[in-house]
Amino acid sequence: MIEDKMKAAVLTDLNKIELQEIKIPDPKDDEVLIEIKAVGLCGSDVHYYQHGRIGDFIVEKPIILGHEASGNVVEIGRNVKGLTVGQRVSIEPGATCGECEYCKEGRYNLCPSVEFLATPPYDGAFCEYIAMRADLVFPIPEEMSYETAALVEPFSVGVHAINRGRLSPGETVIIMGMGPIGLVTAAAAKAAGARMIIGVDLEQSRLDVAKEMGATHTINLREENLKEKVNLYTNGTGADLAIETAGSPKAVQGTIESVRKGGRVAIVGMSPQDEVPVSVSKIIDKEIDMVGIFRYHHTYPMAIEMLSNPEIDIEKIITNKYPLNDTAEAFEKAIHDKTNTLKIMIYPN
Amino acid sequence: MIEDKMKAAVLTDLNKIELQEIKIPDPKDDEVLIEIKAVGLCGSDVHYYQHGRIGDFIVEKPIILGHEASGNVVEIGRNVKGLTVGQRVSIEPGATCGECEYCKEGRYNLCPSVEFLATPPYDGAFCEYIAMRADLVFPIPEEMSYETAALVEPFSVGVHAINRGRLSPGETVIIMGMGPIGLVTAAAAKAAGARMIIGVDLEQSRLDVAKEMGATHTINLREENLKEKVNLYTNGTGADLAIETAGSPKAVQGTIESVRKGGRVAIVGMSPQDEVPVSVSKIIDKEIDMVGIFRYHHTYPMAIEMLSNPEIDIEKIITNKYPLNDTAEAFEKAIHDKTNTLKIMIYPN
Amino acid sequence: MIEDKMKAAVLTDLNKIELQEIKIPDPKDDEVLIEIKAVGLCGSDVHYYQHGRIGDFIVEKPIILGHEASGNVVEIGRNVKGLTVGQRVSIEPGATCGECEYCKEGRYNLCPSVEFLATPPYDGAFCEYIAMRADLVFPIPEEMSYETAALVEPFSVGVHAINRGRLSPGETVIIMGMGPIGLVTAAAAKAAGARMIIGVDLEQSRLDVAKEMGATHTINLREENLKEKVNLYTNGTGADLAIETAGSPKAVQGTIESVRKGGRVAIVGMSPQDEVPVSVSKIIDKEIDMVGIFRYHHTYPMAIEMLSNPEIDIEKIITNKYPLNDTAEAFEKAIHDKTNTLKIMIYPN
Amino acid sequence: MIEDKMKAAVLTDLNKIELQEIKIPDPKDDEVLIEIKAVGLCGSDVHYYQHGRIGDFIVEKPIILGHEASGNVVEIGRNVKGLTVGQRVSIEPGATCGECEYCKEGRYNLCPSVEFLATPPYDGAFCEYIAMRADLVFPIPEEMSYETAALVEPFSVGVHAINRGRLSPGETVIIMGMGPIGLVTAAAAKAAGARMIIGVDLEQSRLDVAKEMGATHTINLREENLKEKVNLYTNGTGADLAIETAGSPKAVQGTIESVRKGGRVAIVGMSPQDEVPVSVSKIIDKEIDMVGIFRYHHTYPMAIEMLSNPEIDIEKIITNKYPLNDTAEAFEKAIHDKTNTLKIMIYPN
Repeated sequence: MIEDKMKAAVLTDLNKIELQEIKIPDPKDDEVLIEIKAVGLCGSDVHYYQHGRIGDFIVEKPIILGHEASGNVVEIGRNVKGLTVGQRVSIEPGATCGECEYCKEGRYNLCPSVEFLATPPYDGAFCEYIAMRADLVFPIPEEMSYETAALVEPFSVGVHAINRGRLSPGETVIIMGMGPIGLVTAAAAKAAGARMIIGVDLEQSRLDVAKEMGATHTINLREENLKEKVNLYTNGTGADLAIETAGSPKAVQGTIESVRKGGRVAIVGMSPQDEVPVSVSKIIDKEIDMVGIFRYHHTYPMAIEMLSNPEIDIEKIITNKYPLNDTAEAFEKAIHDKTNTLKIMIYPN
Repeated sequence: MIEDKMKAAVLTDLNKIELQEIKIPDPKDDEVLIEIKAVGLCGSDVHYYQHGRIGDFIVEKPIILGHEASGNVVEIGRNVKGLTVGQRVSIEPGATCGECEYCKEGRYNLCPSVEFLATPPYDGAFCEYIAMRADLVFPIPEEMSYETAALVEPFSVGVHAINRGRLSPGETVIIMGMGPIGLVTAAAAKAAGARMIIGVDLEQSRLDVAKEMGATHTINLREENLKEKVNLYTNGTGADLAIETAGSPKAVQGTIESVRKGGRVAIVGMSPQDEVPVSVSKIIDKEIDMVGIFRYHHTYPMAIEMLSNPEIDIEKIITNKYPLNDTAEAFEKAIHDKTNTLKIMIYPN
Repeated sequence: MIEDKMKAAVLTDLNKIELQEIKIPDPKDDEVLIEIKAVGLCGSDVHYYQHGRIGDFIVEKPIILGHEASGNVVEIGRNVKGLTVGQRVSIEPGATCGECEYCKEGRYNLCPSVEFLATPPYDGAFCEYIAMRADLVFPIPEEMSYETAALVEPFSVGVHAINRGRLSPGETVIIMGMGPIGLVTAAAAKAAGARMIIGVDLEQSRLDVAKEMGATHTINLREENLKEKVNLYTNGTGADLAIETAGSPKAVQGTIESVRKGGRVAIVGMSPQDEVPVSVSKIIDKEIDMVGIFRYHHTYPMAIEMLSNPEIDIEKIITNKYPLNDTAEAFEKAIHDKTNTLKIMIYPN
Repeated sequence: MIEDKMKAAVLTDLNKIELQEIKIPDPKDDEVLIEIKAVGLCGSDVHYYQHGRIGDFIVEKPIILGHEASGNVVEIGRNVKGLTVGQRVSIEPGATCGECEYCKEGRYNLCPSVEFLATPPYDGAFCEYIAMRADLVFPIPEEMSYETAALVEPFSVGVHAINRGRLSPGETVIIMGMGPIGLVTAAAAKAAGARMIIGVDLEQSRLDVAKEMGATHTINLREENLKEKVNLYTNGTGADLAIETAGSPKAVQGTIESVRKGGRVAIVGMSPQDEVPVSVSKIIDKEIDMVGIFRYHHTYPMAIEMLSNPEIDIEKIITNKYPLNDTAEAFEKAIHDKTNTLKIMIYPN
């Protein structure tokens, strides 16, 4: 039933993706084989494509990128329970060890032994099939599209940010950066009952999408002053929670500026300039809680529930779609047309 | 501008409410005078009317009942800041001391010195005007009706229950009892992003209203088996959070039965039979968290935000409306037509 | 170096333990082989010995009991890192799956697939050697005795109870039942900075040991009235946290009675009579948090640190010591001399 | 019984303190009059003395400094309950409004209307008597000295830091800066059951006192490398919690460097250079929680309990003692002999 060979988009060199025919993986006893239907292209994929590394993670041999994936179960390892052939599923990309102190305390996103799709040396999902440990494969409801199922991955970052930022229903959230992560974070905040969601960016096109993701207010930093607008929208109080997804020092500083006394700040975006000057007196005087956000843990079941709410439609962040054959073109598009591309989706099958 | 005298519905004896003309109160320096526009009739009002006491709180002299109130600010004490004449407001009924250990730690609902509207010996709001400490008077948005503003009070109980029950977005909640408190709790759960909300009652008419409050599923205990239905709806897992608002021993037991391993239970409803047999082995084996809910604290600002969401329309629990003159009739209706009355609203002005 | 055969105390029938010679287990790739030095005898061991079952766990074939164990690492599986031959270690007895939702969220004590030492059908540690997954084997400091290392297991229950009971330094704790679990819970409360620790029991001999475990006050229910004494000790306020370890309905009721408004209750002890009548009005009026305690999760590293404090000496709960050969006698002692035995320790090597 | 006049040390100009005879205050109905027995000299007192301002708080008229105070109740306002003449008490210096949102949610340290002793325009306690709102006056045990009772104030900052830093028993804490606040924070960590407490400073004399406050390890930054030593002490893992009390940019950076993955950082010390460059990638990759610490809330009752533990002896941080008459000299000592002075205590009576 399943062919022996499959197509895969392989990064063979910097800025070079080749379509290759390779062996379909055999699922181990605790794995399932998944026919991939949709995979989102993430900023980290583009970074590996252009630079061959992120921090200590270095591409040392050809690698298949892509870690925001969904598909159908087509084969089941002998020890797997609770999954059946034909099920439509979303894939959590990080296989953690389950045995280290971080796994034991429920913060498995900090597991030092994680094997994460498309993080060297582990291959990702820009290919027709992948084998995945069954506990990382989550069935989705009938009504959910493969695109939304793939976007559960970035959405999970937003869910983790509002969890660690302790968002309560009725609160005001400001989100710096309306790129894909900022946008899905807005959607997560909406699904969690935030009342005022302020999206901040330099690009009006992104702010327009923000409104479709749940932003009730926007601030265009090309034309508007952050502090003035936040004061206007919040009667001078400030936001309850500020989330930084822009990866810019000014945005980090903007979060501290924007929250109320007693407010919380969640830092998601990695700044290219690592050391960011922050105001210690504001952190103390406002008694701010600032938390770092690294991926997510145990978000998939709830994220799938949240995305089943018909008022949340994160597919609207998808701006471009490519078949697997055109993966190389998709990367080039992402690099050379940043203003017009938000989320690019690849379709391997 | 303001008359010297006002009308008030006074409980002068058991089962006897008289319309009297009494002096309009003078607001103290830290108080405002409020022209009352809408007041909800609560089960506790009815209980005082019929029995003259609730626990240690005994009606020893004529009392004005009613504590779910909204209105307009008409006069302002000299030390009051931040409120203006003409503002439309919702009234938090409990004036706590601000100095005891409970007030200091933010759990002012446990303040032993609270002066609570319509709890003896303090008068309530079934009258044309009340004087209220300014920090308990919360402006409402233009679009919000006086009815909704009055219902912020019972809604706050629901908000407190989901707060203490630690409801997360995407979770499943089961609520025992679809009386007014159960119904507004369903609305609070919806506003907080609960994904499945199961309403449970014996009366189909209440379950029908439940669906308008956000219940995605209902269980009619006259015809359906609780455990079977919960298993069916949750794939055998159980609910994340169960909230007891029915005030019945069976309902308390039902919460413990209905939650998943690791689930939470919030007990809101006072049972007439105080001692309820509960399964200690289930509390241990499932490692349940069971929390008591007594009124609420610091919910008004967020509750008003949550009720500003146009998808939440708690006015739909109002089944009957009376002018102040007919307050006595309203009480009799509440007692003698329980099946058809949910929330009765009194209009003093 | 290691013999092929070892001695094991095997429960072959109700009330019958035989010393058998059986094969020493081979550690799997992720396991280590441990030479057992000390094993505590737990109430659950005695229960299996006498009744052959606890709840749904039924002894259907000969079983080795004992799950409170310490020893030396003598052989190491090929994939094991971080442990070396010769290390002195404490053993966490529950091997959880690492993949279910409970493991993922850090509450692995609720894992439905756990393989727990001495819980049928899994063998325990009343034998000379056991093979254990390496992540469940925790090195202990040089100064720590094997006895204390074995008692990390019951101590972990106490640590979990104060964690879930959210004990803060300076608080007052009351502990119902001064059996082994109650006593180590007192020690955990002391190590966590509780200021007043009230031990409650019927036996003066146990209350005497309680004082050595950190109890600052005791109540002997044969002679003293619980409520009166708690009021006396706490100036009428009540305890911040009450922990039930006695497994008696009256003790459960006593916890609810003994805590202050806003207090917390942790239920550890399984009552023989499962349904315990509890006061719903007290749970609501005091706004109590009542939490079930089932074993523990991720306590070993911190428990070992806490027991390294020289002011905590939990060995003092050991009343009797037996070599492995006399395991049967140890069980009989536990059954027939309850008043004088607290913790019995078995020495297999 | 009480004289009409009292002596007070009044800051009449920059660097000028005069002993004046002024009227003894009359306690209001909700206040008590306290005969002051001991008052600590705080860095903020010295800052006002030298610079006449801290941030927006400006000394515009003569002021009495001193806010770490204890004494005896000598007169009682008519509405005060629960206090009696002759009681020995510790004084919480901040009178908050009890009505703002921060007071309502239990974070009254953020109350914008607070009247804080020795913060302009409010007088402090370097005088013979002060009138204080009764809810801020806490009886102390017989065995507790007035000095310890005065030090409850700075100790409360340490308690608040470990509370917000969520210190658990058995954990490792590193504290940057072994000035008075760092030292009492070490004592608070010890009282809360921290297992390893690492004190960091440049002065060996302070590190020697640190050991008496509970530090199990010290790092002298003049001679030792922070990162190396932390790695050595924690087996390369890092601390669970790092607390910054030094008020130096390097110390802030040191906290981020020193904590483990998933660790927490509490920032107490105001840096003279407000903007401190911090590593965003470390905050994200380690998923650090960084919290600002501004004074404290609701710590006095628990702090008094914690200081009643005979193993905690914070008086050892007192290096110098002066009668009220020599207050000016005490300030000069604090300024000109920094290396040898830790806490200076003033005795008004």
